Amino acid sequence: MDLNSDLGEGFGAWRLGDDDAMLDVVSSANVACGFHAGDPRSLLATCARAVTRGVAIGAQVGYRDLAGFGRRFIDYDRADLVADLIYQLGALDGLARAAGGRVRYVKPHGALYNTIVHHEQQAAAVVEAVRRYDPALPVLGLPGSVFLERAAAAGLGTVREAFADRGYRPDGSLVPRGEPGALLHDPDEVAARMLRLVTRGTLVAADGTVLTMAADSICVHGDTPDAVTLARAVHGALTGAGVPITAFAGAGS
Amino acid sequence: MDLNSDLGEGFGAWRLGDDDAMLDVVSSANVACGFHAGDPRSLLATCARAVTRGVAIGAQVGYRDLAGFGRRFIDYDRADLVADLIYQLGALDGLARAAGGRVRYVKPHGALYNTIVHHEQQAAAVVEAVRRYDPALPVLGLPGSVFLERAAAAGLGTVREAFADRGYRPDGSLVPRGEPGALLHDPDEVAARMLRLVTRGTLVAADGTVLTMAADSICVHGDTPDAVTLARAVHGALTGAGVPITAFAGAGS
Amino acid sequence: MDLNSDLGEGFGAWRLGDDDAMLDVVSSANVACGFHAGDPRSLLATCARAVTRGVAIGAQVGYRDLAGFGRRFIDYDRADLVADLIYQLGALDGLARAAGGRVRYVKPHGALYNTIVHHEQQAAAVVEAVRRYDPALPVLGLPGSVFLERAAAAGLGTVREAFADRGYRPDGSLVPRGEPGALLHDPDEVAARMLRLVTRGTLVAADGTVLTMAADSICVHGDTPDAVTLARAVHGALTGAGVPITAFAGAGS
Amino acid sequence: MDLNSDLGEGFGAWRLGDDDAMLDVVSSANVACGFHAGDPRSLLATCARAVTRGVAIGAQVGYRDLAGFGRRFIDYDRADLVADLIYQLGALDGLARAAGGRVRYVKPHGALYNTIVHHEQQAAAVVEAVRRYDPALPVLGLPGSVFLERAAAAGLGTVREAFADRGYRPDGSLVPRGEPGALLHDPDEVAARMLRLVTRGTLVAADGTVLTMAADSICVHGDTPDAVTLARAVHGALTGAGVPITAFAGAGS
Repeated sequence: MDLNSDLGEGFGAWRLGDDDAMLDVVSSANVACGFHAGDPRSLLATCARAVTRGVAIGAQVGYRDLAGFGRRFIDYDRADLVADLIYQLGALDGLARAAGGRVRYVKPHGALYNTIVHHEQQAAAVVEAVRRYDPALPVLGLPGSVFLERAAAAGLGTVREAFADRGYRPDGSLVPRGEPGALLHDPDEVAARMLRLVTRGTLVAADGTVLTMAADSICVHGDTPDAVTLARAVHGALTGAGVPITAFAGAGS
Repeated sequence: MDLNSDLGEGFGAWRLGDDDAMLDVVSSANVACGFHAGDPRSLLATCARAVTRGVAIGAQVGYRDLAGFGRRFIDYDRADLVADLIYQLGALDGLARAAGGRVRYVKPHGALYNTIVHHEQQAAAVVEAVRRYDPALPVLGLPGSVFLERAAAAGLGTVREAFADRGYRPDGSLVPRGEPGALLHDPDEVAARMLRLVTRGTLVAADGTVLTMAADSICVHGDTPDAVTLARAVHGALTGAGVPITAFAGAGS
Repeated sequence: MDLNSDLGEGFGAWRLGDDDAMLDVVSSANVACGFHAGDPRSLLATCARAVTRGVAIGAQVGYRDLAGFGRRFIDYDRADLVADLIYQLGALDGLARAAGGRVRYVKPHGALYNTIVHHEQQAAAVVEAVRRYDPALPVLGLPGSVFLERAAAAGLGTVREAFADRGYRPDGSLVPRGEPGALLHDPDEVAARMLRLVTRGTLVAADGTVLTMAADSICVHGDTPDAVTLARAVHGALTGAGVPITAFAGAGS
Repeated sequence: MDLNSDLGEGFGAWRLGDDDAMLDVVSSANVACGFHAGDPRSLLATCARAVTRGVAIGAQVGYRDLAGFGRRFIDYDRADLVADLIYQLGALDGLARAAGGRVRYVKPHGALYNTIVHHEQQAAAVVEAVRRYDPALPVLGLPGSVFLERAAAAGLGTVREAFADRGYRPDGSLVPRGEPGALLHDPDEVAARMLRLVTRGTLVAADGTVLTMAADSICVHGDTPDAVTLARAVHGALTGAGVPITAFAGAGS
């Protein structure tokens, strides 16, 4: 099973999350690309550390919105979005290559991630950008999303992810942030949920419903205070049960 | 002989220069990379047009300074400058590749260009960035500059450029903007100067001194009102004298 | 009758529209505040010219989106929008005061303008920002918009504007850009429409319907090639009919 | 004696320093203005907290350089710098007024602060900006700097500051960051130094020289891990010796 986390999310003097610690736990690093976070110097350093530890580098592309951290929907014109994403892909890939690796997959960030669960035009723009940049790159997304459907239809590899620290609704969607049960904080509970998901293919929704869910990667968020603790708990539970943690996209270099 | 010009220098709703007309004249396009100018959508369009016309795409990297158009010296930390430049190289190369071409050379922009004529540390940073991104990329610069010296010493290909519309001092440096004779406006004079440079290897400085100068490329600026007129005059004079206009770096695709 | 136009819409090396010419025609200048356009130096210069000519300065606040020129909807958190707008109001007012004038009114720009025609939360945010900055400032908006309704309910002065160069639908809304009849280009037609509006209070919609419309200000856009020509035509028609062009908000200083 | 500290230095999702804790200790808050740090929402919140606690709000203006946190010299054109600073002053003042206070003084930030110790043109630009915005605002700076000299000559109030956590050279200048003795970390030593400065007017330089120094305000930096601890130590030492901590510029509202 793959463990992924968002990294490289600082900017200049500002830091966010503990990239170093997280790189010891995850197999895939979703590295910011400079539009919602990530100054080139720290991105280069994060890529270099990922390469050293054999962690796969993914491009976490987002809206051009440093002030909003890419968490606000922006009603992009399709051609603008395609070009903004290709630009980000190339930029991070350049840094990754300079660090001895390369971008291995693409994961949209924040509001873009959420928007393309249902927004046809923006989902199509992301698919177009990846195809035009490198059609061999797989994309990470929410199972059942318009994005993964369109990506698959366009011939891109698709990777379904589950969220370790998020509650689910009975229909398989996430409990929205701000609602009760949206965020899970107990490392033992989180680890047990993910072990069950990996070994039995089921997940208990917030209302107790047992969901059947197939996931290729588990996301442990990098920007919460307990992120590293939760990630280690999941890592420990899976490897303790004999499930190796390996990148779906190959090594970092 | 190669003719180069700065293109892709708009941003969003703002346009600068007539890229379309200039692409019919030059053999090499120094395309902005988004830090001093250039939104991804228009950069992608400029790359696509360059590819269509067989114009070589160069990365015109600059300081991160949209408000100053990259024309103000910034006292960058070396590691920051290296990473900012790799980021820009990758970004433009991503767009160029999506357009069916690729980045063929590197030309620093504005204050960075002028700074590395003499600034050892920033010159070294540019050389390091190009080497780490792709050591096969040649760099364009001022003959005799610290930059070209360091680039050559590091094994990069170097391309010496002359400026069609700028006056020179007897020591081969440019008359600074704002001083008399800094800018030349007469198309016939400009064309005759460049023809003399190409065929005889000499250039008349502002004080009448005849300079011996070797140039591999002639820069016709893209952001002056008469830019296209001057470029056409130079193009006409050279081709009329049997000097073909061809990119030093190969075709755009 | 007041004539207003968008000014100060360049940024750094980039210019947009002919501020100088437009300031000879209009009575109110909607000056950009730096978030969607407008570098401080050119904003200061525009304010100074407005003061010299007795043109009222209005703050044209917008989304933080230079790359999109403020023309893309952004799903702002309310508290972020309130603070972003107060910041812009203070910034432009500081420049206006340094130029010997002051901000006399507020007009939202682009996507923000269009959004608050119907978006309750963002309309409330704009009203809150103006009230907290200076409740004596009137606001310019579309007649019948949620924004003007909320502004009036909150005790702000409201100014209803008509668009000289835009077609209307029978319900009084604008024909969306991109649809036939959205933009009017004939100076004589535009002038005649506005004269009819001012003298008879009616406007002919795109389908021929005669609309009754009350307007306190007429907007002549500043960013189209023919903007100054259209503005002069409207100015000439009104003053020729004995309707003086005067700012609703008092002189610039 | 006045204690000042840099606050409001986060941006969007990124935080820096513990503004809340520091506002309980200092009498003057140097609040960032958005160009090197500070998103409007958090600036508004910081201003509101300053007003509540009676802490004077100062405008910490800086270069337009979020990526460099205003710590890199930028070779601004004078007119650009003047306008950028007026813009920032107005923006923060707008937020301060919306929070029930107002800007009471001006302190340049980072590289601008260091540059105008000796750079005539930029020092003159800062003085011009403050004079044009509000000549009643005092300015904070390094004793003996070109900036304070020019400010005084222009009729501005000047406030000389000493740095609690910095080492001094025998000539009264600061030991540059990166050199031994540049930064002091021991709260007891820092507190004792500042008590001596306030009560005896002397300070021991890094080489043991005893300097005579007059200071109107003591700066305790806000962005180091121990910042609050050091600030509390200085506060405690001074008040314990009967020296009240009060803003030179009056209360926050």
